[in-house]
Order: sequence, then C-alpha cells, then structure tokens
Amino acid sequence: MLTGEEYIESLRHLKTEIYAFGERIANFVDHPLFRPHINAAAVTYDMAHESEFEDLVTVHSHLTGKKINRFTHIHQSSEDLVKKVKMLRMIAQRTGTCFQRCVGFDGLNALYSVTYEMDQTLGTSYHQHFVDFLKYVQEKDLMSAGSMTDPKGDRSLRPSQQADPDMYVHVVKKMAEGIVIRGAKAHQTGIINSHYMIIMPTIALGEADQDYAVSCAVPVDAPGVFHIFGRQTNDERRLDGEIDIGNARYGIVGGEALTVLEDVFIPWERVFMCGEYQFAGMLVERFASFHRQNYGGCKCGVSDIIIGATMVLAEYNGVAKASHIKDKITEMLHLSETLYCCSIACSAEGRKTLSGAYFVNPLLANVVKQNVTRHIYEICRLAHDVAGGFIATLPSEKDFQNAKTGPYLEKYFSGVVGVPTENRVRMARLVENMTGGTALAESMHGAGSPQTQRVMIIRQSNIEHKKRMAKKLAGVPEQK
Amino acid sequence: MLTGEEYIESLRHLKTEIYAFGERIANFVDHPLFRPHINAAAVTYDMAHESEFEDLVTVHSHLTGKKINRFTHIHQSSEDLVKKVKMLRMIAQRTGTCFQRCVGFDGLNALYSVTYEMDQTLGTSYHQHFVDFLKYVQEKDLMSAGSMTDPKGDRSLRPSQQADPDMYVHVVKKMAEGIVIRGAKAHQTGIINSHYMIIMPTIALGEADQDYAVSCAVPVDAPGVFHIFGRQTNDERRLDGEIDIGNARYGIVGGEALTVLEDVFIPWERVFMCGEYQFAGMLVERFASFHRQNYGGCKCGVSDIIIGATMVLAEYNGVAKASHIKDKITEMLHLSETLYCCSIACSAEGRKTLSGAYFVNPLLANVVKQNVTRHIYEICRLAHDVAGGFIATLPSEKDFQNAKTGPYLEKYFSGVVGVPTENRVRMARLVENMTGGTALAESMHGAGSPQTQRVMIIRQSNIEHKKRMAKKLAGVPEQK
Amino acid sequence: MLTGEEYIESLRHLKTEIYAFGERIANFVDHPLFRPHINAAAVTYDMAHESEFEDLVTVHSHLTGKKINRFTHIHQSSEDLVKKVKMLRMIAQRTGTCFQRCVGFDGLNALYSVTYEMDQTLGTSYHQHFVDFLKYVQEKDLMSAGSMTDPKGDRSLRPSQQADPDMYVHVVKKMAEGIVIRGAKAHQTGIINSHYMIIMPTIALGEADQDYAVSCAVPVDAPGVFHIFGRQTNDERRLDGEIDIGNARYGIVGGEALTVLEDVFIPWERVFMCGEYQFAGMLVERFASFHRQNYGGCKCGVSDIIIGATMVLAEYNGVAKASHIKDKITEMLHLSETLYCCSIACSAEGRKTLSGAYFVNPLLANVVKQNVTRHIYEICRLAHDVAGGFIATLPSEKDFQNAKTGPYLEKYFSGVVGVPTENRVRMARLVENMTGGTALAESMHGAGSPQTQRVMIIRQSNIEHKKRMAKKLAGVPEQK
Amino acid sequence: MLTGEEYIESLRHLKTEIYAFGERIANFVDHPLFRPHINAAAVTYDMAHESEFEDLVTVHSHLTGKKINRFTHIHQSSEDLVKKVKMLRMIAQRTGTCFQRCVGFDGLNALYSVTYEMDQTLGTSYHQHFVDFLKYVQEKDLMSAGSMTDPKGDRSLRPSQQADPDMYVHVVKKMAEGIVIRGAKAHQTGIINSHYMIIMPTIALGEADQDYAVSCAVPVDAPGVFHIFGRQTNDERRLDGEIDIGNARYGIVGGEALTVLEDVFIPWERVFMCGEYQFAGMLVERFASFHRQNYGGCKCGVSDIIIGATMVLAEYNGVAKASHIKDKITEMLHLSETLYCCSIACSAEGRKTLSGAYFVNPLLANVVKQNVTRHIYEICRLAHDVAGGFIATLPSEKDFQNAKTGPYLEKYFSGVVGVPTENRVRMARLVENMTGGTALAESMHGAGSPQTQRVMIIRQSNIEHKKRMAKKLAGVPEQK
Repeated sequence: MLTGEEYIESLRHLKTEIYAFGERIANFVDHPLFRPHINAAAVTYDMAHESEFEDLVTVHSHLTGKKINRFTHIHQSSEDLVKKVKMLRMIAQRTGTCFQRCVGFDGLNALYSVTYEMDQTLGTSYHQHFVDFLKYVQEKDLMSAGSMTDPKGDRSLRPSQQADPDMYVHVVKKMAEGIVIRGAKAHQTGIINSHYMIIMPTIALGEADQDYAVSCAVPVDAPGVFHIFGRQTNDERRLDGEIDIGNARYGIVGGEALTVLEDVFIPWERVFMCGEYQFAGMLVERFASFHRQNYGGCKCGVSDIIIGATMVLAEYNGVAKASHIKDKITEMLHLSETLYCCSIACSAEGRKTLSGAYFVNPLLANVVKQNVTRHIYEICRLAHDVAGGFIATLPSEKDFQNAKTGPYLEKYFSGVVGVPTENRVRMARLVENMTGGTALAESMHGAGSPQTQRVMIIRQSNIEHKKRMAKKLAGVPEQK
Repeated sequence: MLTGEEYIESLRHLKTEIYAFGERIANFVDHPLFRPHINAAAVTYDMAHESEFEDLVTVHSHLTGKKINRFTHIHQSSEDLVKKVKMLRMIAQRTGTCFQRCVGFDGLNALYSVTYEMDQTLGTSYHQHFVDFLKYVQEKDLMSAGSMTDPKGDRSLRPSQQADPDMYVHVVKKMAEGIVIRGAKAHQTGIINSHYMIIMPTIALGEADQDYAVSCAVPVDAPGVFHIFGRQTNDERRLDGEIDIGNARYGIVGGEALTVLEDVFIPWERVFMCGEYQFAGMLVERFASFHRQNYGGCKCGVSDIIIGATMVLAEYNGVAKASHIKDKITEMLHLSETLYCCSIACSAEGRKTLSGAYFVNPLLANVVKQNVTRHIYEICRLAHDVAGGFIATLPSEKDFQNAKTGPYLEKYFSGVVGVPTENRVRMARLVENMTGGTALAESMHGAGSPQTQRVMIIRQSNIEHKKRMAKKLAGVPEQK
Repeated sequence: MLTGEEYIESLRHLKTEIYAFGERIANFVDHPLFRPHINAAAVTYDMAHESEFEDLVTVHSHLTGKKINRFTHIHQSSEDLVKKVKMLRMIAQRTGTCFQRCVGFDGLNALYSVTYEMDQTLGTSYHQHFVDFLKYVQEKDLMSAGSMTDPKGDRSLRPSQQADPDMYVHVVKKMAEGIVIRGAKAHQTGIINSHYMIIMPTIALGEADQDYAVSCAVPVDAPGVFHIFGRQTNDERRLDGEIDIGNARYGIVGGEALTVLEDVFIPWERVFMCGEYQFAGMLVERFASFHRQNYGGCKCGVSDIIIGATMVLAEYNGVAKASHIKDKITEMLHLSETLYCCSIACSAEGRKTLSGAYFVNPLLANVVKQNVTRHIYEICRLAHDVAGGFIATLPSEKDFQNAKTGPYLEKYFSGVVGVPTENRVRMARLVENMTGGTALAESMHGAGSPQTQRVMIIRQSNIEHKKRMAKKLAGVPEQK
Repeated sequence: MLTGEEYIESLRHLKTEIYAFGERIANFVDHPLFRPHINAAAVTYDMAHESEFEDLVTVHSHLTGKKINRFTHIHQSSEDLVKKVKMLRMIAQRTGTCFQRCVGFDGLNALYSVTYEMDQTLGTSYHQHFVDFLKYVQEKDLMSAGSMTDPKGDRSLRPSQQADPDMYVHVVKKMAEGIVIRGAKAHQTGIINSHYMIIMPTIALGEADQDYAVSCAVPVDAPGVFHIFGRQTNDERRLDGEIDIGNARYGIVGGEALTVLEDVFIPWERVFMCGEYQFAGMLVERFASFHRQNYGGCKCGVSDIIIGATMVLAEYNGVAKASHIKDKITEMLHLSETLYCCSIACSAEGRKTLSGAYFVNPLLANVVKQNVTRHIYEICRLAHDVAGGFIATLPSEKDFQNAKTGPYLEKYFSGVVGVPTENRVRMARLVENMTGGTALAESMHGAGSPQTQRVMIIRQSNIEHKKRMAKKLAGVPEQK
C-alpha cells in the first residue's frame, strides 16, 4: 500500500495532459490550483498506515489475500459496506472536502458484479479481464476515476439521435488487438490526479445505441486523452495567499475536469463491455447506487467540520449560549446525522450479488442522495445564519497585512476578548468556502441529479404490495 | 407462545377496572371501543405462529433457551435490534395502526441493563428481581405496558416541588414485604389490554426527588389500579357502523388511558428501583432511545398503508398517471424510507452494554423520532392532497344505506368506471382516519415530545471533537 | 340588513330537504349537527350591526346606494378587496371557524364581471339577469352558496366523455320559460343554511361540453333539490356534550353537503350562462381567484385563535417562558402573517374589469392558496407540539362528570396551580378540534386543490419576459 | 435629477480613500473591482429619465414640490410605499443585482419621522437639521449610504461594556461647532460609490450607552474616513475576462466595505441625534422595518432573473418540457411571488407617523425579511437543480479561447442544436454567480439577521388579544 507521499510521487511519472486557465500545465503536482486536491486524495493513502484507522481503511483482498487499501476492495459483506461509509466520514472529517477516490472505487465494485452477470447471461468473458485489471489496481494501489457522465448534448435525445455522435463516448473501431473510442467524459472528479479512468456508459441503452455500450480502463495519460480543468468558486484565491481559501491544505470540493477521448485505443484486456447494451442500465444502476451510498458518509464528515466551525464562530462572536444558536446547531446535527443514518442503512441492508460481491440496498441508497440534495443546503443556510454576515464581507488577507489597514482590521474584526482576530477570520473563511457555490452544486448533482433518484425511488418501492395491503385493511377486494 | 386468540382469552380472566364515556366498562374485551386495539395487539401473538415471519417474531430466550415471542426478548446483538425494526414494520403493514406491545418490550430491555449497572455501582440487587420477572413474562408470553409518563402538573417544577405530591408516581410507604406507591401514569398505550404495567420514572431525578425514583411491575388489575380511557378522533364511529371507521378491524392508533395508582402495594420481588435517583436519568434515556428506535419501523409500516391507499385512490379517481401525482407518491416514499433508514441505522450501530444486552445508538435513535415528528405530518399532508377533498365531506355510511339517498351517493361518489363506489368510499375513509388528529399527535408526542429529542441530539453529538477538527483545518491553534 | 337572529328565523321558512346520518332532518335549524354552522354564518349578519366593524362589514351598494352587508357587494375598488380580507380575518377571529358566506359572495362577484364581458363579446344579455338577481340578494340580504364543484367521476375524462352524463351539472331541457338542469354539486359549503345556490361550471369547457356551460341561481329548497350532509371529524361529539367539541358555539370548519339537482327547473331570469362554453374558463378563473384571495383572511383569523389557544396552553402547562416554545409561537405567527400578506397583496394589486368591478391579482391570489396548503398544516403541527400529547388522549367530558373518575381527572389533568382543570381541558379540546382532520383537508382542497394553483402560477407569470431579461444580462442575443 | 453618467462623473470629484487587496485604490471609478457596483447604482439615476418608469422612479418633493428621484423622497402615502417596492423590483430586473441605493433612502425616511418625534418629546431641534440636509440631498440627487451596523466585538456585551470602546461608533468630543466621532461601520453596502453616509446607532440603547446614541451625515471622503473593501465570491474574475463573472456589467450583490471613522468631525447642522439614547431603539426599528420591506422588491426582481435564466438553461439543455422541470420553475415562481406579496402587504398596510411621513407595517416588514432568509436559498437550490452540474465545473473562458481546447469545449458543452455554446456558458455563469456564496449570505444577513426579525415578529403580534379570543371560544373565563 502506498503512502500519501508515494502516491504523490507516482503522479510525477505520469504524462497527464492538463489545461487550465487557457494554458497547458507543465507540473500539475506542485501547481497551487491542483495541489489541494492531490493532498486530499493523499489522505486516503496515508490513513491506511495509521493504526487507529487500520480496520476501516485496510482490508484483505478476496483475490489475493493481501492487505490492501479499502479503496481498491470489492465488498464481501454488509459489514464491508458499512465500513466504507465510516471510512468516508472519517477521512472527510480530516480533509473537510472531497478526496475523490470513491468514484473509481464504486466503478470497480459496479463492474465486478455486472461483468459477472453479463458473462453468465450472454456468454461473454469480460469478468476475467476485469479481475485481472482489479488485481493490478490492488497490487499497485492505484487511484482510478469513475468515468461515467457524458456531455449529453440535447438531453431530450438518445445517444444515437444526437446531431453530433460524440456527445456520448462510443466505439469507433473494433480491431483484433482492441477498440478505439471517441467522445468525452464531463465532471471528472479527481481525474487530474488519478492513474486510470474507468469508462462506463451513463444511461440505460437500447439496441440502436449499442456502440455507446462501452466500458474499459484507460490510463489518464494515454495517447489521445487530455483534460480541461473546471473552475470552482474562488479558485483564484489558491494562486496567492492562504487564509482566504478557507482550507488551504485540502481545498473545497474535488477538482473536476472535462476529459476528452480523441480516438483512444484500448486493448481488449482492458475492455469490460463493448456492445452489450442490455447491461448498460444495470451497470449505471449499480454504480449510481454505490455512489449515492457515499454521500451520507463523506458529506456527513464534511458537515461535521461545518458544524464545528459554526460553533467555534458562535463562541468567537460571544453568542454560543443563546438558545436560538443552540437550536440551529442542533438542527444542523440532526440533518447531518439523518444523512449518515441513510448511508448506514443502505449498507446494513446490502445483499450478495451472484458474483459473491455485495451490493447496497438501491432504494435506500437513492434515499441517501435525495436527502443530501436538500439537507446540505439547509446545513449551509444555518451555518450562514449563525456565522454572521461578515463571512460575506471580510476584506482580503492582503488588507490584513497592509501596514495602514491591518491594525484597523485586527481591531474591528475582533470578537470576544482573547481570541486573536486572525482565528476568527480563518474560521469565517472556512465556513464561507465550505458553504459556497461549488460545494452546494456538488451536493445537488454529484452521483446524479435529484430526479434520477426520484425515478429510482418510485421504481424500487413495491407500490403494488402497498396497494394490496391497503385494500385488505379497508375491506376492499384486491382485484378492484 | 400464545396465539392471538389465547391472548384475547387471557384478557377475559383479568379484573381490569376500566372507565370510558362516563361509565365503568363491564366486558371490555368485546366492547367495540376497545376491540380494535385488542385485535391489533393480538397480531403480535398470531404472527409468531406464521412461518413466514418466524425469524422476525420469534427468538430463543437467552435465559432459558426456549423459543419465545420477540416482544419478551432482551436484545443480544445488533441483528436483534435490526430485526425488531423489521418486525415492527411488518406488523404495522398488517394492522395499519399501533399494536402497542413495543412499549413494554422497551421497558423490559431498558430495565435489564439499567438494573445490572445500578447493582454494579450501588451494590443493590434489583437485577435478579428483574430477571425473575422477565422469565415469568417470557414463560406466560405476557403483554406489558411501559408506564413512564407522569401527569407532571406544572412543567416548570420538579416532582418534589409540585403543589400536589402525586403529580409524579412516588413511594408512600416502605414495608418489609414491599412498597406502596401512589400517583398516576398518563397516555398509557395498550394498558387496557395488557397484563402488567412496568412503572418507571419519567425524568432524571435529584436527591430531593428520591421518593420518585421508583420502578416496578404491577398487574393492570391490581387493587388500587384503575384506568380511564382517552378519547380519540372519531371514536364514536366505532360504536355503530363499520366503513366510516376506516380500519374497522384494528382501529387507528393505539388506545391510551390515564391509569390511576391509588396506594398500590408492590412486593419487593417486583420492585426494580426504589430511591436510587442517580439511575433514573439512565433508565429514562435507555427506555426513550429504545422507544424512539421503533418509530421508523412501525410508522414506516403505517405509512406503507397510507401510501398504498393514496395510490389506490389516485387510480380510482383516474389521476394515477398525472406527473404531479407520481411525484407526490415518490415524495411520500422518500420520507417514509428515510424514517426506516434512521431506525435501521440506530440498530445496526447498536452496542453491547455491561449486562451483555444490546442498546441502540442513542444519538441516531433520537434522530429517528425527530424526523417522525415532521415526516408523518408531511406524508399525511400529501395523502390529503392526492386523495381529494371528499375525504373530508363524505356522508355517513347510513346515508349510503338509506333508500332515498343511497343510490344518489352510489352514483355521485363513483370514480373511474368499474370501481364500486363502496371501494372508493372505504379507501377514502381509511385515508381520512389514518391521517387525522390522533394519528398525527401520536407521531408528535409518542416516545417523547420533539424538544426532548433535540436536547439529546446536541448532548450526544461530540461537538468538542467537531470544533477541534474545524480548527485544525482552518489553521487555528486548538486552544483558541 | 338582517341581524343574525333574523337570518336564523329566515331559515325556518325554507323547505330545505336535508339528509344526515341516514335520516331526513325535520328541523335543521335547531339540530345540534347544523346549529354551530348556522351560528357561524349568523355572525356575518350580526357584525354588520356592530359599530366597531361597520366600515368592514357594511358598504353602500353601487346599484342602489343603500347600505348593504358587504357579503352581497360587488367590489368597486382595490380598497374594497382589501376590506374583504380584513373582514374575513375579523369574523374568523370571532368564530374560530368557517362562516361559509364568502363562497356565494365570490360567485356573485365572478358572475358580475363575466356576464358583462360575455354579453359584450357574444351579444347575449345575461348581465341584466344577473344584476336583477343581485339587487334582490342585496335587498333581502340573502346568503348564497357558491356551487361550482361537480362530482367529476373519472378525472381523466371531460364532462361529455363520462360514462354517466350527470357527473357534471348540465342542461337537459331548454324551454320558453326556462331550463331544466340535472346533476349534483359536491362539497357545498354552507348550503344547508343558505337561501340560494349559485350554479357555475367547474372547469374550462370546449364545444363538445357546451351543455355543461350553465350558470344560474336556484333556491336551496327548489323542487328537485336535496342535500346529503357530509361527515366531519368528531361530528358526533356535537350530539351530546359541549366541551369535547372544542368550539361548541360555532363548530369546526363549515358544514359541507352533496347537493343533488334532479331535473330542476330554472326560469330564464335566473340563468346567467347557458351554452356559452367559451366563457366557462373565465368564470372558473375569476371565481377561483376571488375565493383563493380569502384564505389569507379567514385562515389567518382561524390561526390567530390556534396561536392564542396554543399560547394559553403553554401557560397552563408552565412552559410559556421556554425559549423553544417562544420560537414555535413565533414561527406560527410568521407563517400565519405570511398568509395574510399574500391576501392583502393580491387585493391591493387588484384591477378594474370592463364591467367596472374590481378583480384581484390572479397570480398572487393563487400564491395565497398555495401557501395555505402548506402553512396551515405546519401551524397545526406546531400547535400539537406545544400543546402536548394530552390533546390526543383526554378522556371524555362524561368521565369528568362521573363521581368516581371525575375527581381523579380534575387532579391529574391539572397544570400550573390556580388554573381550573376544566379550563385546561377546554383549551386542549379547542386545539385538538381546530387542528384535526377536516380542518386540515379543508385547507388543502377548499378553493381548489394545490395543483390547480400551480398551473395558474406558471401560466400567470410572464416567463418569457424573465427569459428576455436574463439573456440581456448574460450578454446573450435575445432570439437564441 | 442626475443621469447615470452624471452620477458616475460626480464620483470622480470625490477624494474617497479606498483600500482593496492590500492596496490603496487610485481611481476607483474605472477599477474593474468597483465599476459593476457603480454601474448598478447608476441605473437608479438612469431610470428616472425613462418615461416608462417615470411614475415609479420620480416623484414630487413634499418639501420643494420639485420633481426628484424617488430614492431621495420621504414617503407621503401607502401608495408611495407600494411604489417603492415596485421600483425596486423593476430596477433589480434590469441589474440582476443589488443597486445599493435603498439603504440611504431608508436611513433618510427613518430619520425624518424619528427626529420629528424626538424633538416633540425631548424638545430637541434635530428635525430641522435633518430637513435641511434632506433638501440638499434632493437638490443634488445624492446617493447616501445607510450606516448602521457597528463591528460589535463581543455580541454578549453592550457597547459601553466592550473592552475596546470603539466597537460601536461613539461621540468622543462635543464642541461648539460640532462633534467628533470614532469607530467603524461594517458591511457598508454601496459606500464606495456614495456621496454621504448616514450614521445611525445599531441597537436600542440605555443610559449607560448614551455616547453611542449618535446619528449624523458625513461625506464619504471626509477627513478621518476611509474604506476597506470586502471580498466577494469570485471577485477576482472581474479583474480579467468577462464571461466567468456572470453579470459583467452590474456584478453580483452590492459591494460592501468596512468604513473606519478615525476621529471625524461633524458640524452640528449635520447631527441628528447626540445622546438621546431613548430614541435609538425607535430609529433602529424604523430603519430596519423600511429596509426589510425592500427585500420582497429587489430580491424578487433578482429572482425574476434567476428564474428566467434557469428556464433558458432548461431549454438549452433540452429538458424544458419535462414535468419535473416545470414543477420546479413553478415552485421558484411561487416562492418569489410570496416575497413580493409580503413587501406589497407591509406597504399597503403602512400608516402615517406624527411627522406626516408614512411608515410600513413593521410586523409584516419583518415577515418579508424572514421569508427572504429561507426562500432565496430554496430558489437558488432549485436553480442549481434545473441548471445542471456544469455550472460548477465549467472551464474558464480562457480555455474557451485557447486554440487547442476551445473547439473541444465548444463541441462538448453544446446543448440543443442551434444554440451557440457560448450562450449556454454565459447563462450557466449567470446562474452560478447569482446563486453563490455572497448572494446567499446577503439574503440571510442584509437588513438584519433572522433572529432580529423573529424577536420583532413575536413582539409586534398582539398575542394577548389572540389569547383572549381563544379563551372566549373555548368557554374559558378571560382572567384564567
């Protein structure tokens, strides 16, 4: 298992082609725009070496029996699913932000059971390809990005109906040695600092869309692959200064990129689906459910920090004992722990798939994410309420350093006596940035937009059963 | 294990003194005011004999190894806690209402671990008393009522400060053979059709209140005990007719009574606490947490019926395919499953106590109930929305039977062609009654009023830890 | 202008045919099932004679110049619209319940402007019929019921597509002297104690449905008209006793009936629409908007009582000073006053129609009602929270009168010292009944179900204008 | 009346001392950090010259009879109050952001009536000072900043209890010619581009705090006055580029500064309160109520843009016809119009003060703002939902200009065929920035934090009256 430092070193050996702010980035590892994200991902490596977290972050591979980082593991029990959630919360409590590595983790787990069932049904032989790749990932302790979301163009049209065929990643050539794919994947969390990307289709597909039914593993620095980094709220604050960023070490939310795949060659041994459109829907559903499971883990850990910071600000402001403040903190706790409950429940209620690997309860996993799209906004709203208006009007850290203005800012932004003004400012900046635009939008759309969860919730709930029970109680014959 | 029928028979042998509508009730077992509650409780006996539910409703006693009804069991694992929740949901799906037996179940479990820890700390010997009583309960498959809530008088005063010392149950005499207690317990769910009541204090107590630190088991028909039954929404509809009740067999919510204890003698072997005020708080907290755990089980099962009935009405009305209707049904499902998640999570996260028995995660158990005080109201609101205004204006079943008006009502209260009007009316009456006053208020105050949960949520959340983590991330020295 | 007493006397002269609980009612005026509703309506007459309310409840007829009761008035200004809202709040503060008379009031106002515009467009001459009828109503100070809602059968079908043609009121014969109509009107608020019913179509109609485009005035005791009274939550409590009803004098919500029209003859001078399907939609929209305007008036007045009663209970319970109680009361006030704001705004923003009469702002009127379908539920939820669980478990008033149980109930249901237990019980019964089933469902469906408001809100909002402004700001050419 | 251009020119003549990003700003008028705010304020001048808005933006001075810009007017009627709200909505629909000028407007109106009543009660003569100043403001068409919020230090202490006496602005010297004040005002909206600041105390004061009871008018460039500009979300995007800002012309929210008052001299003729602590509370309440009134005007106008932009994005994405999208747009409209209703209502319900000037209904004005602290967050949440995740991951405009990446971004960020990708990006950037951190926090804390409104809501509601009415209905004697 790599350490965080070794992981960071490993990135230096890649030839990842990255663009940001209109320029090609030469050394992304030390670039202040990317380094916080890299630091956050590195925590997933470091914590595997801390005895306190050993039980959560390490596990024995069911393939090799070797001790591996859980992020490369295939869940073998409900307990594994529960530990995943606890691990995510624990890491988020340290980073205060997205550490990105769960996406590939979920891609691996989704592909493991789906390739198995696909092979069983269709007589294909993708599962062995996948297991070989998985062993390699476990052996090298790789970080993979889960690459599902296509650009989608006109959302009212299917992939094959789009004016531009590249709006969804598709196979453009099949050869003896492998396939060639084209297209792009959007909103690629953590891809800049991953080793591999795991390509998967983004929606259930019909026969007409079979060229779009493609899944494979691609190095992030493969020929034809390049990444254009997305902007985030206040991203320029990273380029100079430290305090105004809020969380200088780990940043706020995971960095996302548009990854272009310009006729990229994939050898067959890295191909896990190619044309089997019948299983695209299952793969999407498995991945999405695993990914939605996470949000009551990591977002709850992130909320732990927001709640803690909000409480500290209440103390710095001298209002911590006011009953309405305590009530708001209680509400934040309640909402955050509700998210956690949902993640624990969908894990504890997980079940074994045909492959032997475990899958979360998909109904409850969708309930997790649906709650996240609401509760995180409310938690942030309450954080704004308690923190006070100055989180939106604080002058820059350079004004605090300026000889003329610095002393006045020290004086007038002080709170209760004895707390250095800088502490109060740092805490305000942390709250400001953790509750701002990108962080909110990520809670909304990460792991799928709210409507995708609602469709799953009604589909997964056995309404017919509920109708029958209601009729029985009301004294209505069942057939009416 | 008794069958439902045997349970009902057993009630006939009791001399329970019951008053309702200003009269002493002679035969409460066959009285239409009480029979639905008795039927609902009987389901907890019947399902133990159905093989489909065997794993949920029966279990082997850790004391005797014999197969017992789970409602008399002491939880021996997290799995037991999870099964409790699933059992409650399953029974509620059959009854569509409160089946009352969980209150005593929770009382037994709370006393088991608390008497153990109390004996360990104070050198008392209550645990053995309790185990003996428990064996008796398991052996006879008794239904016990959990009797915690005192009348409380002026809520701003402690028990010993009340003008009338009886506002909380207290010990008025200690003798060689036992003790004498006086007072009353309010909102006693299911007590009319229980065999025993388990007396417990209702709040944490100080030394001045030590006479109020009393716990014991009392037969519901012991000398000096009598019960005055509470009114419920539309209770008179039970006295004549069947349809307007909504759920004629099982009723709506559990029947509650004020139980007066007028100088009741309790032999020492049935006394589990007498003066040990230091443990009153722990007992309340254990009981309340167990009891709050339930609400995502039984209320979710009840909601399953409400959702099913609402969906049936949408079909009867011809609107089931409208997108806003599906969206509202989805929302009801989402809210209901969120409750379930919380109950599963607080169970899966349960822990072993010193006595060996398992206890739920109290933070998450309080989160369950807090959500119930909101989501059930919203589920009912959505049910009203979808069902239509006629749930509030339907004429009585007698008008349907009247020769003149009957045919007109048949005609004008019909929905889509082919559905008998009676079915539509029955379903409307089911929704009306399941979403009315008492059912709502029970979701609010059952297992403790909302503020009691909020106090626990903030107390159980490690805020100091969250503050430390936030400071670390913000770059603030911890001590400031 | 009649007094309340004169109004009640006038009802005795009618031959209204009423059925309830399976029987024909001989003397409905003195029947305890109906008397509270009659008392509530009588307040609209009585307050016209109280100088304090003169400015709100009386006005000079624009037709005759005579002083009339505002409930028979046609709004001549925005100020009239605002005064209507204030009058409704004021009366509701006295009755604590629906006083029913606004429905006919809104029917009159809707027909006034619509018949005018219809005549202008189609060359018909209904407006004069209507004005003549209106003068008669003003002269006699009649109470009219606004009769819009048809039974509707299969909601997915238009009137003419229904299997049974009577599912919507329609013209079955046109003769020289008048027309004959058949069908029924559902949820008829206050019709039992009205003099006239104002028939209107319930949806926009197409040419195929022209027989359903009928509006007219019919005496409630006309040949062929009879009424079957709907049940309400706890309606039987009115039949014996006084305390358990909560509001013995005025009842809880307005009484509703299904009114059957079995081939009823209407002379032409009382016909206001007959076949002009093109104006059915406008009539529905005008009526619905006027009626939705009301809900921030009367429901706010009703909420004033709920809030007051809740606060009194908090005092009786000894918790009035707890911060969470004050916060909940504040929230109730906030929600209630938000409703009021919406009603005031849609009135202040009213505009003159072609007829000279004033019409509310229909967008904002729909906003009023949409808020009512949420806020009233939340206000009631908070009332339950603060009031305490005993509102759902109190024994009956007969138990308080019983020689054995009475003293115990007196003792154990007491709150703070000095408050008679009866007062506490009365207040609890008031809250229980004002927040129960029928009251909630009425807030949901009265004046149209929530989805009807949402359809209007998006239709009435100038989205195209908003899109243009957004494009301008974003620097996007308007046509793209 | 000045035009926008003349207003901008007038700023060039000031010697305003401004600091930002650690530097003293030489020419703030043309600086890209400030210019959008200046442009937004200039719209308040320009629209006064557009005939379409003449009735809203201009009015005749009650002092001089001359036509003036409404922002310098004292409300003479409820109609004036209503027009204010409509004007604010109209301007916000053009700017899509805060135009800052209402703060001083509200300060003027608050001082007009309070100085009058103070003089009446205490025999002082501030009102004439104020009227003279007001004439000057009207004559010169000045923009004034309402300067109320003090830094406050330890919020649990009163001004005179603070360790540092300067935490609230106070009088340090009184002389024959005038007074000298010291302290700072925080969160000063629009002060950079104002002419004058109107100093007012920020809380009700007692006798011990009488030095803090000071109100006066100060030029923003007076000796001893300087301003340190606050950071906003994504403020650096203004410094290069145009698209990523979202609203390049007017910016997002109004610019705020900390304004330091370092021993500033104020001549007596510009002093409006000096020691009269008894009237500090009234002044705060008047100002706050006027200011809270605004939020259903300007925020509703801002929401109009957000809704329009969201709808445009739905069209660009090809999802505008999906029922869940229409439902979310409807909800946004509903929430936004609810805000508007509250502002209209508190205006229409305004009343005349002793001075003859009109004051809003303070209860309803607080209801406005309380709703804003919730609804704007929900509107923004829904905007995120509908807009899609790309608002949080779009690459920078420089990447669109880059020769390598530009074409790929054009291709992959396209939506429905025929819409230029740039349009889609511009619209996304508009939504991103209008719904981000500062904009949200401003809705929370502008015009006072939520708890300040709750305190006013419960205080302004006549709870005693509600209690009496409830007792009457319940049959409870009033005194109990």
